[in-house]
Order: sequence, then structure tokens, then C-alpha cells
Amino acid sequence: MIVRTVLKHKGDRVITVASTDRIDHVCRVLSDNRIGAAPVCSPEGALVGMLSERDVVRALARTGESCLALTAADLMAQEVVTGTPEDSIDDIMVLMTEGRFRHLPIMENGTLAGIISIGDVVKARIAEIELERDAMKQYIATG
Amino acid sequence: MIVRTVLKHKGDRVITVASTDRIDHVCRVLSDNRIGAAPVCSPEGALVGMLSERDVVRALARTGESCLALTAADLMAQEVVTGTPEDSIDDIMVLMTEGRFRHLPIMENGTLAGIISIGDVVKARIAEIELERDAMKQYIATG
Repeated sequence: MIVRTVLKHKGDRVITVASTDRIDHVCRVLSDNRIGAAPVCSPEGALVGMLSERDVVRALARTGESCLALTAADLMAQEVVTGTPEDSIDDIMVLMTEGRFRHLPIMENGTLAGIISIGDVVKARIAEIELERDAMKQYIATG
Repeated sequence: MIVRTVLKHKGDRVITVASTDRIDHVCRVLSDNRIGAAPVCSPEGALVGMLSERDVVRALARTGESCLALTAADLMAQEVVTGTPEDSIDDIMVLMTEGRFRHLPIMENGTLAGIISIGDVVKARIAEIELERDAMKQYIATG
């Protein structure tokens, strides 16, 4: 299965935050949209980082509540690994495991085409396992 | 693959927090141990809930920094789904997807025997895929 197939089911709408957004606002965006991370965009609309629940909790642990007045640019991960719609879900599983991240922005023609979370990856694997099981049952029934 | 196999590689050490721990302390525990959630234990040592980075960020979004002075008992999820060492990784994939949680405490003989994260599940699936690939190569080479 490839990313394009997953995005077709999930939709390509991506919730982003601005690099100038305050962390307390970012918490509300993550919470309201029930997401664990958001791509961070520059005022020009370019992808400049990723900001996750993990980044917020680590900053709280380091500096306490004062981090809530910082901006997304201050806490985001600046080195962002991205994928393409043609990447396979298996390849993305490996990327996420090696890089220890849980959300992968998908780029197509220089723009954000979607986001794949580790939850999406697991859901896609379940769908594949069920397909294999059905095929095997069919094979046994007709064998 | 079953949970017991994964725990054998990963280890059965579980970082827990006390139900009376303050949220700012819990943030440091999660951050210092590089984990996304921790089982919450009563003073008697019983599992009474789970507290994740997500719970902290949602509380920040709802009530702001005042949530840092609350306790683990205030923010934890009280209804905790648990697994056993004999559960299959495939079953746990389904549980996590349906319940939208990312960490599953594993119980054996009434005590915490480990914790399985969605990252562990994905890592186990990669190991299985690699085994299948090797077996298939072997089959083709000797066919």
C-alpha cells in the first residue's frame, strides 16, 4: 500500500500552525483537532518545521510554564523528514522507527499534500492483514 | 508475534508515576525517560490510570498553566485497557486503533509486567516483514 491510497481515505486536509503562533495557542490547535503534531509554516507558507505534543511536554519539563509564551518557531523540530504520495507504508514504518518520529508530512510539487501519522500506518497494516486473511480463506475454500 | 517476545527484547522495566504526583513533575518523568505516557499507581501500588503527553496538552488547552499544579489523578484516563503477555501484536494493533490510544500496560498475575507502545508494535511488524522477505528469498533461491 502507498501513501496516496491512505490519503485518499483519510483526506488531504492538513492542520498547520504559523511559526509566529504562541505555544498556548498551538496547544489549543492540537487539542481542538485531536492531532498530536502540526507542520509549522512560515508567513510565506513554506514548511519550516514540525511541532508535536512531545515538544511541548519536553519544554514544560525544561523551563516550566514560561514556555507557553514562546512561539512555534522556538520549540519546533527544524529538521523535518518528508515523504511523497508514492512512498510505501512499509518504507514509512522504517523511517518512523529509525527517526523516532510519529508524524510525516507528505510533499507533492513543493506543497503539503497531507500528513501520515503512526496511527494511519498501523490502520493501513491492519487493512492489509485482513485482505491477506480473506485471500487465504478464499484460497482454502476453493482449493 | 506475541507481547512476551517483544518484552523479552525491550525489557519489562516500567516507569510509573504516583496518583499524587503533580503534573509538572510528571512532565519531567516523561521527558527524562523519553516516553509518551506512564501508568499511574495508587499509594498501594495498584494501576489506577494512564497519563500521556496528550492528556497534559489537552489540559493546557482547556485551563492553561494552572493545570501544572494538578495531580496525575486529576488528568489521567481512568478507564485503562490492559493486555497480557500472550496477546498477539496483531490484536494489539486493532485494540490501539479502535481505542485511539498509543500505550498498553501489560498485566500478569495482577502486576504490571511491561508496557507496549505503538512504536513497539510497528518495530515488531517491521521485524516480521523482514523475516518473511528473507524466507521468500530463500524459497526462490532454492526453488
